Amino acid sequence: MTNNSFYLFFPADFSNGELCKNAEAAKAEDFYFSGLDATRETDNRVGSTITLLSTNQIPGLDGLSLARTDYAPNGGLNPPHIHPHATEILTLLRGILHVGFITSSPENRLITKTLHPGDVFVFPIGLIHYQLNTANNSALAINSFSSKNPGVITIANAIFGSHPPHNREILAKAFQLNTDTINFLQQRFKGNQ
Amino acid sequence: MTNNSFYLFFPADFSNGELCKNAEAAKAEDFYFSGLDATRETDNRVGSTITLLSTNQIPGLDGLSLARTDYAPNGGLNPPHIHPHATEILTLLRGILHVGFITSSPENRLITKTLHPGDVFVFPIGLIHYQLNTANNSALAINSFSSKNPGVITIANAIFGSHPPHNREILAKAFQLNTDTINFLQQRFKGNQ
Amino acid sequence: MTNNSFYLFFPADFSNGELCKNAEAAKAEDFYFSGLDATRETDNRVGSTITLLSTNQIPGLDGLSLARTDYAPNGGLNPPHIHPHATEILTLLRGILHVGFITSSPENRLITKTLHPGDVFVFPIGLIHYQLNTANNSALAINSFSSKNPGVITIANAIFGSHPPHNREILAKAFQLNTDTINFLQQRFKGNQ
Amino acid sequence: MTNNSFYLFFPADFSNGELCKNAEAAKAEDFYFSGLDATRETDNRVGSTITLLSTNQIPGLDGLSLARTDYAPNGGLNPPHIHPHATEILTLLRGILHVGFITSSPENRLITKTLHPGDVFVFPIGLIHYQLNTANNSALAINSFSSKNPGVITIANAIFGSHPPHNREILAKAFQLNTDTINFLQQRFKGNQ
Amino acid sequence: MTNNSFYLFFPADFSNGELCKNAEAAKAEDFYFSGLDATRETDNRVGSTITLLSTNQIPGLDGLSLARTDYAPNGGLNPPHIHPHATEILTLLRGILHVGFITSSPENRLITKTLHPGDVFVFPIGLIHYQLNTANNSALAINSFSSKNPGVITIANAIFGSHPPHNREILAKAFQLNTDTINFLQQRFKGNQ
Amino acid sequence: MTNNSFYLFFPADFSNGELCKNAEAAKAEDFYFSGLDATRETDNRVGSTITLLSTNQIPGLDGLSLARTDYAPNGGLNPPHIHPHATEILTLLRGILHVGFITSSPENRLITKTLHPGDVFVFPIGLIHYQLNTANNSALAINSFSSKNPGVITIANAIFGSHPPHNREILAKAFQLNTDTINFLQQRFKGNQ
Repeated sequence: MTNNSFYLFFPADFSNGELCKNAEAAKAEDFYFSGLDATRETDNRVGSTITLLSTNQIPGLDGLSLARTDYAPNGGLNPPHIHPHATEILTLLRGILHVGFITSSPENRLITKTLHPGDVFVFPIGLIHYQLNTANNSALAINSFSSKNPGVITIANAIFGSHPPHNREILAKAFQLNTDTINFLQQRFKGNQ
Repeated sequence: MTNNSFYLFFPADFSNGELCKNAEAAKAEDFYFSGLDATRETDNRVGSTITLLSTNQIPGLDGLSLARTDYAPNGGLNPPHIHPHATEILTLLRGILHVGFITSSPENRLITKTLHPGDVFVFPIGLIHYQLNTANNSALAINSFSSKNPGVITIANAIFGSHPPHNREILAKAFQLNTDTINFLQQRFKGNQ
Repeated sequence: MTNNSFYLFFPADFSNGELCKNAEAAKAEDFYFSGLDATRETDNRVGSTITLLSTNQIPGLDGLSLARTDYAPNGGLNPPHIHPHATEILTLLRGILHVGFITSSPENRLITKTLHPGDVFVFPIGLIHYQLNTANNSALAINSFSSKNPGVITIANAIFGSHPPHNREILAKAFQLNTDTINFLQQRFKGNQ
Repeated sequence: MTNNSFYLFFPADFSNGELCKNAEAAKAEDFYFSGLDATRETDNRVGSTITLLSTNQIPGLDGLSLARTDYAPNGGLNPPHIHPHATEILTLLRGILHVGFITSSPENRLITKTLHPGDVFVFPIGLIHYQLNTANNSALAINSFSSKNPGVITIANAIFGSHPPHNREILAKAFQLNTDTINFLQQRFKGNQ
Repeated sequence: MTNNSFYLFFPADFSNGELCKNAEAAKAEDFYFSGLDATRETDNRVGSTITLLSTNQIPGLDGLSLARTDYAPNGGLNPPHIHPHATEILTLLRGILHVGFITSSPENRLITKTLHPGDVFVFPIGLIHYQLNTANNSALAINSFSSKNPGVITIANAIFGSHPPHNREILAKAFQLNTDTINFLQQRFKGNQ
Repeated sequence: MTNNSFYLFFPADFSNGELCKNAEAAKAEDFYFSGLDATRETDNRVGSTITLLSTNQIPGLDGLSLARTDYAPNGGLNPPHIHPHATEILTLLRGILHVGFITSSPENRLITKTLHPGDVFVFPIGLIHYQLNTANNSALAINSFSSKNPGVITIANAIFGSHPPHNREILAKAFQLNTDTINFLQQRFKGNQ
């Protein structure tokens, strides 16, 4: 047969941590996830829940990843955060989102937009961004990421909820707050992720 | 001010053909698209329509892209094709899709799955794949691609609808059809894209 | 001695599947293959045979690969196929090749050329291409690929010879053929790779 | 002469914005900077000054960049920030630095170290980090970055000093502060970079 | 038509210096070179001639390049050199080549092999290598490179034939030769490339 | 908690040969090295010593590396060499360095500069370069490399000190020296690295 000495072509990175399958063993379930349509609870401090599908859920995934984000009515917030590894495209399916991102130092320009269902917005890789649901019903977005491991750094949790806590004098100086306020914030964010 | 000699951080590739903006001139509209919720016509030969958002529609896009695909009821087909530059994640919002992809030579394994709303399926980069709507209502999917320019090669159009047409003897030999059938197919696919 | 704390420099990817040698153990044979000058049989359905050298044959190979292709006289065909991972440079040593490739959708332009010994032709990564020997003696080409694993998808084999076979209605609709013709083709390509 | 048809080898990216020289025109000054030994003023709110050398200062630079950081005695702070594009190696020449970085969500582990002259510390790409001079004389560090454009996002400036300012309710909710405190902070960081 | 909003797929880098064609204007000649079969003169100091095909000769080339090397009988030498950007696969068509490469410091292992027609040998990226024709007829090799711009640094020419010449004391110390010998060598290599 | 299904972000390549730690086990020492301020001996043939910090010394390092180079007074030489994997930034802390690099064939331009403390100079990736201390006190430089494994090929050692030695006729022809001189040089460089 022609071409019979060619290697089998398969996703180069089809080897994710625990699971490293070869092409012959691949099956449809490795490329499949069910249940992204189910609404998630948003009963938490910020009023939003992210459900990420990455190689833990879909072993055959490579090069990008997907999430759904649920927002509580009247102020469900996905608080300021950074994805160090991925640009994000948000597609709004329900609700009204006020969204924004900040360009890097020294400019720190805030770029915002109000989104309605059917609107799409791009958050560039490595920039701080957030979304807030201003509708009086819940909101739902589909998030596409340009990496199978986008990563996330939630600013307030990293700064005030670290383990162990930061030195208070450093935070007081960096954020121009007194150490009592820093102490108060560290109590509030303790145990948060 | 600290850090004041650092370059402004901005997407490295924020320069798309005609449009090359610098960070100071960036505005929210460069990251925004409206109207992905509008149903598209599927009144064509195969019964499906793809609406791709790339840097033509969203100048600030980089690293990935997004599409919606509309499928006619009872057999709307996104015919066998390849994205040479991107892995695709399909999220089904409505309808029932029979989907499949084929591993590369010499294996040529066909891997298939039937999808319902809320199901997610991954098509690995560079492999032939297709989707067929088997529901008696229209279907709708959101497609995420791991490149801002996924590219597409629709197999039947490339083989039988090329400009100029292929030599009939070559196609007859490659596809084991007589030249009359090749001629018939070239007439059918003429002018298709 | 100077520089004595520097790491040994060696091909970063000198670790291929089963074989992962360190630099000290490397020997000339790991970079060597003998016998590419021997003519291969072309007594098969399409009249061509590809002999690929990749890391299976040359463990020290990295970043590119090499093949020879033998074509039968009077119509030996390397049928339409795609290398998803590599651009190819073909150098013709013997015979007369009619070659072509097709640009991607929606253009589907067919670009062709007739090659004589000493001619060189480039097939861009991810595009469908083919070669046909129109000389009345056998033809021989050296193929260079821009990846150590170029991959190959032979269109007719993937479409009509998959395991398990495709649903006939899908192929009939995609290729505008009746299901009897699809059935006939699936029988012809059964067992091919 | 041998090899005379080979292209001139030169840094692939020797084309930086305004300046795109070809190899023939390159001169020693394009690879040179003088004066990194001069002490910088640290008389600002946080007590530190960063002097970055990138392609603005050294047109021939590619693949990495360099900075010096001066810290005021007794608390000069390089406040929490992220380099989205680069890992950093800090080499301490003078002073005593308390340094730290925070792993990403959901862990948010704080990893710290006290550095003395001759110590070297690595800050991984995309993670929040800071340095504080605890010596009673000024401190000086050399910073190496794994990109010619490391980028920087200074957290407090991006959050509280953006242009235009963030909506106070969003920051109040995200940081668990009342809007009066947010207002106070936005006044403090106004005009900072 | 399906897929009609997709960008045309084409080699991403089909823009080489002076020539930047778009896909519509591409023609077969952009992917074609004729005359690689013609024997080259080897009447020069080292007794070898390299004919490189890169984007100057084949505008559509991307990701790899090709050369032929002609060697004079009885000692035609391609002297010690480095390709900083490419791994090389040499395919010997005629002659007998003694070939070798040297691993990096501090090992400096010399790995050699004698090649006959049909033999293939790999020279890893960035390592010093050479070939010597020991047959009493001329030799011919096809060279494939893993970059469209492999680059070449011919050691003796760079060291002793630079413009302007190196300081003699530096070379004398580095190569443990007296300055008279260095002077002699600089005269010999003057004007060589 | 929000974002709780996101993968932990950590340096992608935090897995160096023997040591592959996961993020939870990371500790400050993995990112730390002490003692780069200690002066090194330069009592060797060329009068210079390089101390490289890479993942052997700092397991958490990724994307770049660092070295210090000590030069003997009055002619301490870091002899002509190539880093195949990295551009280098040299920062001079003490002494006076005459530095140079050579562009690739066929140009072989020598670009030189005399450096004083506080001067910075860039050596582009893959080009031959050297430094010579012309001060009558010792010199000290900090070297930053754009790869965690820059690699080094010291020209004279690779050419004249290889194991086993090169064929003398090849070197005689390549370097235009008689075989007695080659023999002499091979004795001198024997055992050097």
